[in-house]
Amino acid sequence: MDLFEAIREVVGEAGLIVGDDVRARPADWQGRAQCGAMAVVRPRTTSELSAIMKLCHQARQPVVPAGGLTGLVHGVDAQENEVQISFERMRAIESIDVIGMTMVVEAGVPLQSVHEAAAKHGLAFGVDLGARGSCSIGGNISTNAGGNTVIRYGMMRENVLGLEVVLADGTIISSMNALLKNNAGYDLKHLFIGSEGTLGIVTRAVLRLRPIPASETTAILAINGFDNLADVFGLASRRLGGLLSSFEVMWREGYELVAIESGRHQAPLAGGYDFYVLLEATGTDPDHDAALVEAVLGECLEQGLAEDAVIASSKTQRNAMWEIREDSQTVRQILFPASVFDVSLPLATMNDFIEALRASLHAEWGDQVRFIVYGHIGDGNLHIIVSPRPWSPEARRRVEEIVYKPLAAINGSVSAEHGIGLEKREWLSISRTAQEIALMKQLKAALDPFGLLNPGKVLGEEAG
Amino acid sequence: MDLFEAIREVVGEAGLIVGDDVRARPADWQGRAQCGAMAVVRPRTTSELSAIMKLCHQARQPVVPAGGLTGLVHGVDAQENEVQISFERMRAIESIDVIGMTMVVEAGVPLQSVHEAAAKHGLAFGVDLGARGSCSIGGNISTNAGGNTVIRYGMMRENVLGLEVVLADGTIISSMNALLKNNAGYDLKHLFIGSEGTLGIVTRAVLRLRPIPASETTAILAINGFDNLADVFGLASRRLGGLLSSFEVMWREGYELVAIESGRHQAPLAGGYDFYVLLEATGTDPDHDAALVEAVLGECLEQGLAEDAVIASSKTQRNAMWEIREDSQTVRQILFPASVFDVSLPLATMNDFIEALRASLHAEWGDQVRFIVYGHIGDGNLHIIVSPRPWSPEARRRVEEIVYKPLAAINGSVSAEHGIGLEKREWLSISRTAQEIALMKQLKAALDPFGLLNPGKVLGEEAG
Repeated sequence: MDLFEAIREVVGEAGLIVGDDVRARPADWQGRAQCGAMAVVRPRTTSELSAIMKLCHQARQPVVPAGGLTGLVHGVDAQENEVQISFERMRAIESIDVIGMTMVVEAGVPLQSVHEAAAKHGLAFGVDLGARGSCSIGGNISTNAGGNTVIRYGMMRENVLGLEVVLADGTIISSMNALLKNNAGYDLKHLFIGSEGTLGIVTRAVLRLRPIPASETTAILAINGFDNLADVFGLASRRLGGLLSSFEVMWREGYELVAIESGRHQAPLAGGYDFYVLLEATGTDPDHDAALVEAVLGECLEQGLAEDAVIASSKTQRNAMWEIREDSQTVRQILFPASVFDVSLPLATMNDFIEALRASLHAEWGDQVRFIVYGHIGDGNLHIIVSPRPWSPEARRRVEEIVYKPLAAINGSVSAEHGIGLEKREWLSISRTAQEIALMKQLKAALDPFGLLNPGKVLGEEAG
Repeated sequence: MDLFEAIREVVGEAGLIVGDDVRARPADWQGRAQCGAMAVVRPRTTSELSAIMKLCHQARQPVVPAGGLTGLVHGVDAQENEVQISFERMRAIESIDVIGMTMVVEAGVPLQSVHEAAAKHGLAFGVDLGARGSCSIGGNISTNAGGNTVIRYGMMRENVLGLEVVLADGTIISSMNALLKNNAGYDLKHLFIGSEGTLGIVTRAVLRLRPIPASETTAILAINGFDNLADVFGLASRRLGGLLSSFEVMWREGYELVAIESGRHQAPLAGGYDFYVLLEATGTDPDHDAALVEAVLGECLEQGLAEDAVIASSKTQRNAMWEIREDSQTVRQILFPASVFDVSLPLATMNDFIEALRASLHAEWGDQVRFIVYGHIGDGNLHIIVSPRPWSPEARRRVEEIVYKPLAAINGSVSAEHGIGLEKREWLSISRTAQEIALMKQLKAALDPFGLLNPGKVLGEEAG
């Protein structure tokens, strides 16, 4: 019996897609490319996936596990000799423990569904990001997603208590811990969180939930000068402490592009300032929390750290502020084709890094380059989009050099939250030592000796 | 040249201890047993340890890395054929980045020194526990220590950004990341955090610091009935949110033993209630935070959830409350010899578990058994001390059966924060599946094929 007949016996007729039907499927959430795999397998359960992997292992068939296809680093690109594993038939929210504040989900559940299901019980999930409607929990786990509330709740890693994965040989590792503290042996889940499907395939997870905050106060500040920006962050951290849940910064060009130039938004603050900060505080005491944020903003203005500020006075205004931060559509329409970066670096080096970048880009392309910067300053994470004209593979390459190379000297990372995928492989050594990369390859070889899981991603073709 | 001559050339005369001088050294922080190793090696740097491990690897010489010797699971016991690695000459606090809020330390630094050094800059470290004066950061990392503020800041794992380790063959893995977000390849540090020195030896770390909270409000509540206890925790979590930093519960017997029977403390509340909760809130707004805690306590009393409560009105009163919680000396003097447990289990199963345990113990030993329970309820972690008379190895064994076996059915853990060491090895399968344990052994074999690192701990003799 050939491999696909055997797989079809496991997953049923609807579980296996081959031929032209594969090409009709997208390779990314925008549908700009078509799926390149030889087949798509859609298991309904972990047991089915285990059986599939046993067959693939026997046949040395490489597989590419894919989630909501919202990644930005070509982390789930599939070649003609590869089988894509889809989780679109594993979208169950299995249970919610309201007292223990945990939720058990299958890998295919969209992030937004987790938020909605938790909210019905007065609970919230600590990871949120712009792609919430499309991205899947399994993908969020495999890439250790970050997002807008990392300074308060941490990344995906800190919000996953237990995990179930299928290894390359089909073994099911069910590590569905629901306890906040468990030091009984090695904490295996951390091997699989953030390793982009190269060590195992995430099938189910136990998520940690939190009480929904009773208060939510959102503001935008305009700031001139990076030192003032850093001081505002320091002041907000000290005064708001555990209330501070977001501190998102837009450099002038990005704010003006989206809030003003696009014509799609009502700009809450005028253009022309160096930085725009979207600050959000969530807590348990609405009157007090709003007053505290107002007091903090007042101090920033009085001390001359901020030039202007506005607090959202309704949920509608709050959402409008976030829509400016999350309007990737405008950015794509105006700036693409472009290079998208997701770097992290120490706060103390950030301004020099960006100013040197600005100078280098203009030295290379004069006024034929646009670039915008925004990011989660609170955790040192910047997203940078660079759009040189004319666009070419060589231009892309040159932009990458200009952005990545200076990171080595300041201990920055070439990927804060997007991962490595195919796109950043050759830059991995900027952020990791040869010994670290050798150890990664040793782990890959131990867990996936035939290199069947997401081949070529993170570590390159020769790994596994 | 024999192994020890070669080691002496690396570490110098003072760096190698052999013979009777080894026996003069303690095996635990109380000095109750003497060090059983054939030699103690005291490197001054990571490079020295790397050279030592290259020699040991060549000679197939097993080693036992040891920290402050405050562990409770025989995690660093050394045999006559083993060499102990001591970090007493690696106690430097190398640097503090006040803006980035990080600290670089060597493994031998005591936890308390970290707190003190951070405090000088208005910063705090998120992990604290009773053994702070003796335990070392390297040991805290290797065991993924928890402690008193896990509900606010997480365990050691969440408070370590970067790590340097020496592998079994002497390779130095320098993964000294100082960034809050870094998804550039596998997050290797999590392999070594909590694996009790069996996969690599921690030599240096980058710790995450936080601003020192501007407010600290501490209270003790007396509560009758487990449902009320759970409701008080729920109410405090909802109302205090990110302010709630400790929620430590003492079951009646333990509170009465320490606060009243010992004669060492002034009891803040009378005996006779089912539970005593030590609640602490830390925040940024002293007046508001104290008023909020007071309001929450008021609600607990009004709603009949708590019977009595007292708020510490001074730092002295606050410390006196914590001294009751942390008085392990009294517990040892009155109850030892005894079995010490560190389990975690879902809050919803906790009362039934303890009541069944109480019944089983009295069924077995009548009134010839004392037991006390206290723990970090907020994260499902209970410490249980059982003292049956007459004491014997058989009695210890029987107590272990009575405590551990019921955990399997309720997905509890045989170790919440103490680790496995030698002591809990045979109970590991209560909390972990055969597939999980097989994967742990596979990792051990990949990283330490000759089984040279902390032999026998966690996984047993045959691993590696």
